Amino acid sequence: MAESVFAVPKGFKAAACSAGIKKSGKLDLALICADKPVECAGVFTTNKVVAAPVKITESRTRQGLCQAILVNSGNANACTGAQGLQDARRCGDLVAEHLDIAPEMVAISSTGVIGVPLPMYCFEQFVPSLCRSLKHDQFEGVAKAIMTTDAFPKMSSRIITVGDHEVRLLGLAKGAGMIHPDMATMLAFVFTDALLADGMLEQSLRQAVNGSFNRITVDRDTSTNDMALLLASGEAENREIVEGSSDLDQFNRALNEIMLDLAKMIARDGEGATKLVRIQINGAASDNDALVAARSVATSQLVKTAFFGEDANWGRIIAAVGYSGADVDPDQVSILFDDVAIVSKGLGLDSEQETKASEVLKKPEFTVTVDLALGDGSAYYYTSDLTYDYVRINADYRS
Amino acid sequence: MAESVFAVPKGFKAAACSAGIKKSGKLDLALICADKPVECAGVFTTNKVVAAPVKITESRTRQGLCQAILVNSGNANACTGAQGLQDARRCGDLVAEHLDIAPEMVAISSTGVIGVPLPMYCFEQFVPSLCRSLKHDQFEGVAKAIMTTDAFPKMSSRIITVGDHEVRLLGLAKGAGMIHPDMATMLAFVFTDALLADGMLEQSLRQAVNGSFNRITVDRDTSTNDMALLLASGEAENREIVEGSSDLDQFNRALNEIMLDLAKMIARDGEGATKLVRIQINGAASDNDALVAARSVATSQLVKTAFFGEDANWGRIIAAVGYSGADVDPDQVSILFDDVAIVSKGLGLDSEQETKASEVLKKPEFTVTVDLALGDGSAYYYTSDLTYDYVRINADYRS
Repeated sequence: MAESVFAVPKGFKAAACSAGIKKSGKLDLALICADKPVECAGVFTTNKVVAAPVKITESRTRQGLCQAILVNSGNANACTGAQGLQDARRCGDLVAEHLDIAPEMVAISSTGVIGVPLPMYCFEQFVPSLCRSLKHDQFEGVAKAIMTTDAFPKMSSRIITVGDHEVRLLGLAKGAGMIHPDMATMLAFVFTDALLADGMLEQSLRQAVNGSFNRITVDRDTSTNDMALLLASGEAENREIVEGSSDLDQFNRALNEIMLDLAKMIARDGEGATKLVRIQINGAASDNDALVAARSVATSQLVKTAFFGEDANWGRIIAAVGYSGADVDPDQVSILFDDVAIVSKGLGLDSEQETKASEVLKKPEFTVTVDLALGDGSAYYYTSDLTYDYVRINADYRS
Repeated sequence: MAESVFAVPKGFKAAACSAGIKKSGKLDLALICADKPVECAGVFTTNKVVAAPVKITESRTRQGLCQAILVNSGNANACTGAQGLQDARRCGDLVAEHLDIAPEMVAISSTGVIGVPLPMYCFEQFVPSLCRSLKHDQFEGVAKAIMTTDAFPKMSSRIITVGDHEVRLLGLAKGAGMIHPDMATMLAFVFTDALLADGMLEQSLRQAVNGSFNRITVDRDTSTNDMALLLASGEAENREIVEGSSDLDQFNRALNEIMLDLAKMIARDGEGATKLVRIQINGAASDNDALVAARSVATSQLVKTAFFGEDANWGRIIAAVGYSGADVDPDQVSILFDDVAIVSKGLGLDSEQETKASEVLKKPEFTVTVDLALGDGSAYYYTSDLTYDYVRINADYRS
């Protein structure tokens, strides 16, 4: 990774390797380590079927401190019973042992196939060398090692200035399928060297997740392994970022940007996807109505398939708003594809507008705006198109 | 239609023709008419965007009487504003005029593309001849004329004996995409010559819809035009079927069977589908929990794609149960494909069982049973697989 492209926060090192968990021989095991125990906040899947590493990491990070994250792809360690919990703990113990830190300071994260025990010999063999190869500039390797069906690694970073100190934020994420996070995400790890006042980190993470990972969908399937962790080393030596300050606003804005970057990368990389579409609902009776309507349009199979077909099929969009549960007066609805109006007061416009809208649909990225003309509520959601390749990838995934 | 295969209830006639609404020149307009105004009950889409014909028919049938149903495919007359309502009324007026009956006795139903005004010249030209060609044996033509992306016409009938009189029930339905009915259905029309006591018809229809059309899904998209109508001519001259009688039980059983037949035909004919899968949830904490879990598994894109890939990917099934909202203890869950156990107490069984399960998945029709081992709640849902052809059909539908 070029240090010039991504800003790596002070106080963190990383390493990645190919441990043989993936049959392909690609990178599949990574370790991120802080120089000392640092502030930590996490949000986790709302699925009631929770993978072993999520259970352990949720409990360990509840205290607000963490020093290392061990993450593997190729195996989710989910639906693996007591053996799975024991295996996850053993992974953490291996890290603790070789880094000489407390096991409770090690977060564990896994992604991949469900229902297959972890191949522990891979961890026994490769964790020791991983612990020895930690470096400041190895984060791109981590972004690659957490990929499963992802087509590209996902990273984003920002540098802000607090007082006269530079503060860095760096985020990594993975995800392409089983994407419909709710109060959690795929795997996402964000690191900063900011110094924040007590309690700020958790609050900042939750609001950022709500505007990013909770606003994307690929297939409505919420995973058993979703996890977002935010670690802050404080090594930027900035003045403490406190509640209600403009420093906090600035920090949150940078955090939101990083997490929305990552979320959009996940949606754009939706399995088989060829398009990234923002669904923008305006004029709803409430923000919640807008969110409900946006989610309904973003998750409609018929809408997503029409996007793939580059068909300005607004009937499916208005139908999806209609069954969302949000208040809607069909005779007031307007719809735009980017800035091309295609529906006004519930009625389709002329074929000239349809032709212009079809041009918008040919773009790899565009916005569908639905105005309900009932109030001030607004919300957005990012989605991808549903393609032949989604079916191919998921019909074949395990074989 | 061979009278020997389907039992046509006394007192009804039908006709179908090709009126040019579909570009293909296939049958697209049908009329069913009773000899006199008959008892009628209906359930309609819960989508807040409601097509013009649904609005008119819902209001006209509220009184419990109906004599004729005019139904077209190729155009949904949805999102067509005031013009759409006027057009739908004009369609009914044409029937009323040529059959010399009251306009309020005419139900109107449409299915097809959303947002395009009805081609009224097709109706003006063909309704008169349709009214002249009504016959007792033309119901198969009706079943064909209501098809859109359907691969085959959907009909089912039963004959029961009430006292010493034969009572006939005949159902017709259409539907293949935008299938996720809720308290309504695609288009379904059921006719009987039974004589029932006041209020029985509505009650019978609602319970039958709940166990049939409300238990299927193709793509989670609830249509703007869903409608199920049940008409009873009373011409069987049976003793009146009254509340709490074994006659009513028998009638409801036959009605349920017909409607479940039709519902399963719709799921089997899901756009691009190659498989019909029953999702059976047992051992849930409540029947409602079971229904929520069954719906979640039945609608999971990842589960449906795995069915297409003939992959016994139980991890996706257990994940879909996990995010359904139903109570679940992952360590108690068992899963069977037909009678092949593949998960026991939350853990995958050996590869021999996986091989056997893969054999089940090769069948065109099978059952996935999930036992939550928490209580006595149970429910079922029918679903189809998600295939390349679903994407092809829906990416191309309007072009």
